[in-house]
Amino acid sequence: MSNPLPSVLAAIECDRAPALARLFDWLRIPSISMDPSFALDCARAAKWCAVQLGELGFSANVRPSTGNPMVVGHRKSRTPGAPHVLFYGHYDVQPVDPLSLWRRPPFEPHLEDDGLNGPMIVARGSSDDKGQVMTFFDAVRAWIAATGDVPLTLTVLIEGDEEADSIHLDTFLRANAAELSASLTLICDSEAWDRSTPAITISLRGFAGVEMTISGPSRDLHSGDYGGAAINPIRALTKVLGELQDANGRVQIPGFYDGVSDPSAATRDRWQRLGFDPEVYLAEAGLRNPSGERGRSLLELIWTRPATEVNGIWGGYQGPGVKTVIPAEASAKLSFRLVPGQDPAAIYAGFEQFVRARLPPDCRLTLRAFDGTRGLAIDPSTPFLALAASALEAEWGVPPALIGSGGSIPIVSAFKDVLNMDALMIGFSQADDRAHSPNEKYNVTSFTRGTRSWARVIAALAG
Amino acid sequence: MSNPLPSVLAAIECDRAPALARLFDWLRIPSISMDPSFALDCARAAKWCAVQLGELGFSANVRPSTGNPMVVGHRKSRTPGAPHVLFYGHYDVQPVDPLSLWRRPPFEPHLEDDGLNGPMIVARGSSDDKGQVMTFFDAVRAWIAATGDVPLTLTVLIEGDEEADSIHLDTFLRANAAELSASLTLICDSEAWDRSTPAITISLRGFAGVEMTISGPSRDLHSGDYGGAAINPIRALTKVLGELQDANGRVQIPGFYDGVSDPSAATRDRWQRLGFDPEVYLAEAGLRNPSGERGRSLLELIWTRPATEVNGIWGGYQGPGVKTVIPAEASAKLSFRLVPGQDPAAIYAGFEQFVRARLPPDCRLTLRAFDGTRGLAIDPSTPFLALAASALEAEWGVPPALIGSGGSIPIVSAFKDVLNMDALMIGFSQADDRAHSPNEKYNVTSFTRGTRSWARVIAALAG
Repeated sequence: MSNPLPSVLAAIECDRAPALARLFDWLRIPSISMDPSFALDCARAAKWCAVQLGELGFSANVRPSTGNPMVVGHRKSRTPGAPHVLFYGHYDVQPVDPLSLWRRPPFEPHLEDDGLNGPMIVARGSSDDKGQVMTFFDAVRAWIAATGDVPLTLTVLIEGDEEADSIHLDTFLRANAAELSASLTLICDSEAWDRSTPAITISLRGFAGVEMTISGPSRDLHSGDYGGAAINPIRALTKVLGELQDANGRVQIPGFYDGVSDPSAATRDRWQRLGFDPEVYLAEAGLRNPSGERGRSLLELIWTRPATEVNGIWGGYQGPGVKTVIPAEASAKLSFRLVPGQDPAAIYAGFEQFVRARLPPDCRLTLRAFDGTRGLAIDPSTPFLALAASALEAEWGVPPALIGSGGSIPIVSAFKDVLNMDALMIGFSQADDRAHSPNEKYNVTSFTRGTRSWARVIAALAG
Repeated sequence: MSNPLPSVLAAIECDRAPALARLFDWLRIPSISMDPSFALDCARAAKWCAVQLGELGFSANVRPSTGNPMVVGHRKSRTPGAPHVLFYGHYDVQPVDPLSLWRRPPFEPHLEDDGLNGPMIVARGSSDDKGQVMTFFDAVRAWIAATGDVPLTLTVLIEGDEEADSIHLDTFLRANAAELSASLTLICDSEAWDRSTPAITISLRGFAGVEMTISGPSRDLHSGDYGGAAINPIRALTKVLGELQDANGRVQIPGFYDGVSDPSAATRDRWQRLGFDPEVYLAEAGLRNPSGERGRSLLELIWTRPATEVNGIWGGYQGPGVKTVIPAEASAKLSFRLVPGQDPAAIYAGFEQFVRARLPPDCRLTLRAFDGTRGLAIDPSTPFLALAASALEAEWGVPPALIGSGGSIPIVSAFKDVLNMDALMIGFSQADDRAHSPNEKYNVTSFTRGTRSWARVIAALAG
């Protein structure tokens, strides 16, 4: 059989206008998951997606979940021995406020051109994640148009609560583990490296979160009556938190760095070739100097070093003027970004030990741990990764950036933990796409090259 | 002339029932200064007070101020060379919420007996401060009844915004400095030492307050994208505040203890005789251990040592669950309790120096200082104090406790700063009077012995 890829790519070119029209249809549905008044719209967006999959030969339907409905579809390849992959995406979108900052209504998709990005699809959900999901669907469509089949057996799972931290996904995966199992998860919900370089995310930091309260006096005290003589929980809290890092930025929690390895020479080489500019990255945050551990590069700090951050702190009086109170308690929320080798349970235990060792007399500690996820790293030499990388290089003319993410993607952990599936994370959105912000957009080039990229990745994974 | 005091005291005994009836009249007026909807009631309470003074031979009237009206009255003694004193008090009261915790309506004064305090006058304002003001008025009334005159020339100033931190008093004192000047201020707004021991407050800590904000990133950052690499203002703030005290509780602000002296041997002797129990004091706050500077007694810590307390702190996310944010800024409110020898301006400067020395790169500091007052101490051998102490001992059978206050009383500083007048602070309320709380009460014995005490102090000061 001759190489079918040229005809598949040609089919994508022929489908450009209809593809845009289909995406616009989906974008017109205001499927905001975090506002219950849009629940019917979420159901409509799910139904739209199931119909779309039906057109592509999937047996697809909308399933109830503990949250918004899930869309599940199956399509068996006619190719003998075709690998089985699961594609995951989400149909829900972020809220649109502040509405006044949108140049046009967020659910009236249209094309704009800012002279920099070329034509852009502007609408809520255009890049996060409807546009990205459609790149995969349209690649499947082109394969069918050109060859009558897809050389992969496909399961598709499109959820409706990703913007609410996928809080219903874990339960659904566990309840449907057998049906949803495949050899690999494909996810299209991330960014390209830049306009001319694709990217595959190969590491994610894990997450552990904790809320702590230090209580002291049995009631709020007047700081005239007791100031300088009674323990102030804010003093205790700031002393504990102020000692979390040493002068070199190293986290002082016992055992925090146990199991953490330094990046390999090959990894450092890859980073070197990315042409990453730490000054530009920091400048986007209004900063000039890296913080955190001394002697580590910025990419290392974000991608492969664990971190401890206080995300919130509160206690005592926060209003205008003066209130001379010694509060009965003070609280903080912390998060730990974890890398492979670190165990969330051990981090919680080490943190508790760290705090208790510094707790003054008469103080009580309340700790509440939030669910943790481990850090994740995919070996760049893993076969599926190498195949996908070659496919992307063939489309873009440059090899993809193999990047890390400093954040955590709970769904990736969920697929790994519940179904023992690795994830191939490829996305085509750009850093300036304003996901979660007014005037969200998705470049038409992201949309088209994304579709072409998936067409090639499908071929590559089919082997 | 024979000693008039026995007949003055006899007049007080004869006046017991009418005195209670007058106080009840005043207590029925809900003169809550912090709620503008009670402004007319405040004006009524002021008018009631001016009428009362008129009955006592004062030329008295109600004066507008920048807040609730002031009551000012003058009464010249017929005694040649009679000393001229100013009596200060307030007619406004605290709000009454939570109303549901009152056993009877707060402005329906009545007598109760709890088997411990004897008969108690229960009503909002009974001890703070209408009952205490009336002890002085009734002593004046008894002097007039028994002798036809008072052996002191009197100016009375009763304000209506004390519970709002006397924010209008300073302006009024400055505008009427000549009229209000006298040789000494008498204030009846403090507590007795216990049920059988009177007290004179001879030291007050001063106050300096500051609000600080540390800003870092130009916007809130995602702690996945920047955690471990961008400065977190909460980290900077907790580090600064966590270093405010060393391991021995000593404040590390440069120059903080400049000018601070240790209490004299005589002072320590006096404290020793008070029979103060630090364990009881701490237990009222649910604590067992003193905090603050090591090696200092609790009374020393509260009365004659300066202190630094964080009264409030906030930054980042305080809601339920997790939000992985590195906030753009974090803030705290601090107060400094000052003792004689410390200059509020120097404390502010030292604090700013302390913070700036610890400010990480890329961070900006915003500081806002609140008005400061110096600490105050009256030499126990000062003549007016010795005279008043003898008078109190004659009434109570024991010498008064010469006590400090860990808090600041801005009005005392105002009289000192604006009019250069020292203050004689005598009060008769008890620690269990529930000032500012539901079911506020004033023991009838406080009321009667308070009146008798003032009658004697008037005699003593007249010489």
